[in-house]
Amino acid sequence: MSRHYTIGLDFGTNSVRALVVDVSDGRELGSSIWEYQHGQAGILLDSADPDLARQHPADYVTGIEKTIIGALQQASQDQHFSASRVIGIGVDTTGSTPIPVDQTGTPLGLNEQFQKNLHAMVWLWKDHTSHAEAEQLTQTAARHRPHYLAKCGGRYSSEWFWAKILRCARVAPEVFDAAYTWVELADWIPALLTGSTNPAALKRSICAAGHKAFFNQQWGGYPDVDFLSQLDPRLARVRQTLPDRAWSIAESAGGLTSQWASRLGLPAGIPIAIGAFDAHLGAVGAGIGTGTLVKIIGTSTCDIMVSPMKQKLADIPGLCGIVPESVLPEYFGLEAGQSAVGDIFNWFVKTIQPGGTSAASHEALTAGAEKLSPGESGLLTLDWMNGNRTVLVDQRLTGLIVGLTLASTPAEIYRSLLEATAMGARVIIERLEKYDVPVQRIVNCGGIAARSPLTMQIYADVTNRPIAISRSTQTCALGAAMAGAVVAGQQSGGYDRFEQAIEKMTAVQSRIFQPDPARAAIYEKLYQLYLRLHDAFGIAGHTAQLSDVMKELLIIRDAALASKKS
Amino acid sequence: MSRHYTIGLDFGTNSVRALVVDVSDGRELGSSIWEYQHGQAGILLDSADPDLARQHPADYVTGIEKTIIGALQQASQDQHFSASRVIGIGVDTTGSTPIPVDQTGTPLGLNEQFQKNLHAMVWLWKDHTSHAEAEQLTQTAARHRPHYLAKCGGRYSSEWFWAKILRCARVAPEVFDAAYTWVELADWIPALLTGSTNPAALKRSICAAGHKAFFNQQWGGYPDVDFLSQLDPRLARVRQTLPDRAWSIAESAGGLTSQWASRLGLPAGIPIAIGAFDAHLGAVGAGIGTGTLVKIIGTSTCDIMVSPMKQKLADIPGLCGIVPESVLPEYFGLEAGQSAVGDIFNWFVKTIQPGGTSAASHEALTAGAEKLSPGESGLLTLDWMNGNRTVLVDQRLTGLIVGLTLASTPAEIYRSLLEATAMGARVIIERLEKYDVPVQRIVNCGGIAARSPLTMQIYADVTNRPIAISRSTQTCALGAAMAGAVVAGQQSGGYDRFEQAIEKMTAVQSRIFQPDPARAAIYEKLYQLYLRLHDAFGIAGHTAQLSDVMKELLIIRDAALASKKS
Repeated sequence: MSRHYTIGLDFGTNSVRALVVDVSDGRELGSSIWEYQHGQAGILLDSADPDLARQHPADYVTGIEKTIIGALQQASQDQHFSASRVIGIGVDTTGSTPIPVDQTGTPLGLNEQFQKNLHAMVWLWKDHTSHAEAEQLTQTAARHRPHYLAKCGGRYSSEWFWAKILRCARVAPEVFDAAYTWVELADWIPALLTGSTNPAALKRSICAAGHKAFFNQQWGGYPDVDFLSQLDPRLARVRQTLPDRAWSIAESAGGLTSQWASRLGLPAGIPIAIGAFDAHLGAVGAGIGTGTLVKIIGTSTCDIMVSPMKQKLADIPGLCGIVPESVLPEYFGLEAGQSAVGDIFNWFVKTIQPGGTSAASHEALTAGAEKLSPGESGLLTLDWMNGNRTVLVDQRLTGLIVGLTLASTPAEIYRSLLEATAMGARVIIERLEKYDVPVQRIVNCGGIAARSPLTMQIYADVTNRPIAISRSTQTCALGAAMAGAVVAGQQSGGYDRFEQAIEKMTAVQSRIFQPDPARAAIYEKLYQLYLRLHDAFGIAGHTAQLSDVMKELLIIRDAALASKKS
Repeated sequence: MSRHYTIGLDFGTNSVRALVVDVSDGRELGSSIWEYQHGQAGILLDSADPDLARQHPADYVTGIEKTIIGALQQASQDQHFSASRVIGIGVDTTGSTPIPVDQTGTPLGLNEQFQKNLHAMVWLWKDHTSHAEAEQLTQTAARHRPHYLAKCGGRYSSEWFWAKILRCARVAPEVFDAAYTWVELADWIPALLTGSTNPAALKRSICAAGHKAFFNQQWGGYPDVDFLSQLDPRLARVRQTLPDRAWSIAESAGGLTSQWASRLGLPAGIPIAIGAFDAHLGAVGAGIGTGTLVKIIGTSTCDIMVSPMKQKLADIPGLCGIVPESVLPEYFGLEAGQSAVGDIFNWFVKTIQPGGTSAASHEALTAGAEKLSPGESGLLTLDWMNGNRTVLVDQRLTGLIVGLTLASTPAEIYRSLLEATAMGARVIIERLEKYDVPVQRIVNCGGIAARSPLTMQIYADVTNRPIAISRSTQTCALGAAMAGAVVAGQQSGGYDRFEQAIEKMTAVQSRIFQPDPARAAIYEKLYQLYLRLHDAFGIAGHTAQLSDVMKELLIIRDAALASKKS
């Protein structure tokens, strides 16, 4: 049997990773990480503006070479492996991370003239300098193009493409004028590897365009010139540089140039898949499909589902994005998320509980929290310490803890925080199902999924559903490698369809977290109370009676304590 | 000028204190504390029942001698002082702290036969074994004697007289049967010193009887036999041993016996005032009078006001007690309170923030909290971690914190806890004023008042009123000494009226905490939000719209940050 391999290139916030995968079974043969060299942990900062976060494009170029060569070296320890049998490459990146480029598609940041200008560098996803511009985009769209907002949860974010370009036009006109166009990082990497960075030839990803740039074939692709001109007449020029269509990850950006092939030690001409965002290819690597919800759980979550395009799909209020083919071809990609998950646990451990004592660690708090029964603490928390992304889409919401007594302990609060994020997850599931997107299976991946069995069990009990954990701990890179296998196609030893790649190359761990009926019954009661607080504090104009909430929590607590004693 | 002195005897939870005071100006010449010797810090505990808290009566007897002799010794260092010029003694104690006594008025706990029986000992105020009995008392009164409840805030407490006696009848019939009657500690000490412990002669305090034993002249004194028999027929026998009237602190229990006089080195026959509870005499020592609210702020608060009996006074919903002459003769005594104040701050420092680090101390958190402006944290807290005593009278309420973000710090939470107790204090003030008891002046005393200027400033800003601090740090013992001066009377060198004693013997510190208009304006907004949460979570059936609460807090926060920068 002849073996074939693909490579996934995963551009994260602080580093880039390459992963070499066996196409037949998804086995990971080699992996290599390279930390970006510029700025602080790869991020260019401005001490005068905490919202600013940029990157140097040179780091990406260096990173490709370092990591692919490193991963290939590691893979070579497998006796069957040969770099000549690598048949394709896929790419995932952070986003929206737009790059101002010149007429040849070269990032301005690589130009000597702009070396000291942060605005000419890459505008990293977490750059929040554009909040005023985002607000203007939201308001203008609400007035003139409400259908634009319906596909992105009702608000345009300061993290996104047009807000950043508009910001640049205002604060750095010299950069804006020098930039022929703007290219998402997810688009630029495949273009670079295939020698097609020229804006006229460059293929743009439907994932980035659809989720972050108001792109939709329904209204003719990118937003129209009229709309953009209302924001700033200068945007019309940028709009002219954008193509009429966008591409899914099943499509090839072109073949690996011979220059890059020799630099990397790979066969020239192998296809490079169109890029996509990390969460979306992470969902692919976790085994997405109709009815499967993939949750990537880290400092925040990204929740991904797909729904066949041959079925009608309503706009789902509160979802961050509904974009045709943004995850898989022939499927709508649905994106939801929780603004903070692991960040909440870290906040409690690192900020509220001062460090340096044995009690102030995730391990100690988890050990204490594990000893508690559901409801025993009498606590209930709204997990909005960083706002609420889905379904309320409101950054101006905050966290709430109710049920505190003089006997409340750190372990009880910690467990309540874990439970709150599980309840936030359940709200998303119920919203999807309410709009006819049944959630038949949940696969969790990401750092929290891998490291906290207690959290996963709580998710199972709160949602009253089995929770599977992705086998791979590098689902984003794996998903990218799978895209490489699909663009290579069956004739080259890959797959013609993502369904096949998903069946062969992904799996979940053998341990499935099953809900316990007794615990689930208690969480059902707590969740109903959570929902009442959720609606009371989160939905404008909602009227509520809450005077029994504290008492109900005490009744649940007393019952939990009594059943623990007996 | 001839000098005269009185002694205040203050029986606390863990110790007794004697204070020797100059009658002319309240100067404190000598003070002595003696820790009770029995049990744990003076409290007899039962490892099988965390609700149980008893005391050994022998500790009181020893304590009188130890502390008075000690205080007199210290006073003797003043060249003018002479024990022969002590003209009276006053007594305050914890309560309700009833003692089962035999036909001679001797506590059963002093009887050899009962040395091992905890039920024969003194039932300390904080003994909560009688919660079922308290519930029965509340229910029975609600059905048959609702006017009883109207004077004590609507609920009978497990800490109080009848609940404890009923409990004893049920769990220790041998003690109940051996007890001829039950006497409050506040009544027993003056009786002991004056040789009038015999139940037929013993004068009972209006303060204890009125606040804790359903005593009111309006309905003929103690509760009627019919009512008590419905609770338990055996209570009828106890009722027969109780007198028809009760006495205020302006009245004398009798003269110091010659036996006690020689034991203590004091003149025989000097009058001993009728006893009262510590908070009530504390209010006297802090300078109570019409329009003055005295707040004794420690682990919890006790709030005392008086209102002239010649004016009509409505029942005030949610007040713990309204009792004629319980504080001063010719005045209604009004008692309110917050179930936890210092306890909340201690909970955060000792339980939530683990000890052992520099950050986990009141000092460090106060230093951090002092740097914050009102509203800057965006946090708002309901201070119900130990329920709500006034005005909701509901132990089944719990604490709530809203406005938490990933940037929230321990100092911010700590300050929010301080602010929450100030808002709880304001609710009490507004309730009093709503029922025509104007609060013209606030005098704080107790541990928190003495030690935390930040907390006092926050109280001034939140209530938008000047806050005075009592000059004496031993207001309870001082108030008791003042009662000694009044029962001695002007002819003996004391005073005929409490108003005179208060004018001469009490004062406030020179530093008055003045409200700052800018800070008060911000707290006004926060207080309105607090009230909305208070009513929504605390009042049965209350309907509320809370969806703007988190946003309002952020608006207030952003304005606070902006004005700090400018």
